[in-house]
Amino acid sequence: MAIEIERKFLVANDLWRAAAHASVPMRHGYLAPLGAAASVRVRVEGTVGKLNIKAAKVGISRAEYEYEIPAVEAEEMISTLCTGIILKTRYYVKHGGHLWEIDVFEGDNAPLVVAEIELASEDEAFERPEWLGREVSDDRRYYNHALSVTPYKNWE
Amino acid sequence: MAIEIERKFLVANDLWRAAAHASVPMRHGYLAPLGAAASVRVRVEGTVGKLNIKAAKVGISRAEYEYEIPAVEAEEMISTLCTGIILKTRYYVKHGGHLWEIDVFEGDNAPLVVAEIELASEDEAFERPEWLGREVSDDRRYYNHALSVTPYKNWE
Repeated sequence: MAIEIERKFLVANDLWRAAAHASVPMRHGYLAPLGAAASVRVRVEGTVGKLNIKAAKVGISRAEYEYEIPAVEAEEMISTLCTGIILKTRYYVKHGGHLWEIDVFEGDNAPLVVAEIELASEDEAFERPEWLGREVSDDRRYYNHALSVTPYKNWE
Repeated sequence: MAIEIERKFLVANDLWRAAAHASVPMRHGYLAPLGAAASVRVRVEGTVGKLNIKAAKVGISRAEYEYEIPAVEAEEMISTLCTGIILKTRYYVKHGGHLWEIDVFEGDNAPLVVAEIELASEDEAFERPEWLGREVSDDRRYYNHALSVTPYKNWE
């Protein structure tokens, strides 16, 4: 088991775009409904299929398991067994020795943009880039699984 | 995607035991609750871990995806993310050119014994062994996922 320690932020502006060194289109869905003990995510990342299982708790640290699977099987599962598909492009930005992942959501979750940083411990220090907005690590609504059920465009 | 075409029967007596050529202890749980569109099963079969995803429909044919994973990770997921664990020993019996899998349930599902045969098509003919009981392919209660929620000992 890996423990994923991740902090999630909004972005304050577009200055991160000039610093992005790579991007990948992502499309994913969930096999277990919101409210189950685990999130079971099926994703196609570019040409790679992935199955990801995480403890369904809100917060910075979560147990996580991830396995690569054939992309064609991931696509089939997304089309036939999942509801509430998430579409986004992930950009990668290096800043102060850390790697930021910036998710630009599409479809019903546009124009939401969320920045995530993976840390070695919950209290690990990191440099805040000038484009970083407020933290939303503890806000359940910003979890991808929650966004697949209640997309950003439907928020009050 | 594979399509699993499987028929499920009770057993009428113990005569299959003398013909069994192998057996493996199995322990598994489910990551998605009963009622979701897919069953997501985490299993340890002997020393092998497996993740299995099936369309959650009752009947003979079901779409199925299966991936081998580290047994230690499967064990962790069963212990921490699943409820209603199924314990059984699977025996293998060859009969008339087909392979039968005979599941002898333990714990809350003892003394249930179920025999399954995998076929190439729903109408494929097969020889009925003398120990074969009535068919339960269309009886939702005998599905392992259902047994993990309502075990055999609690049936009316």
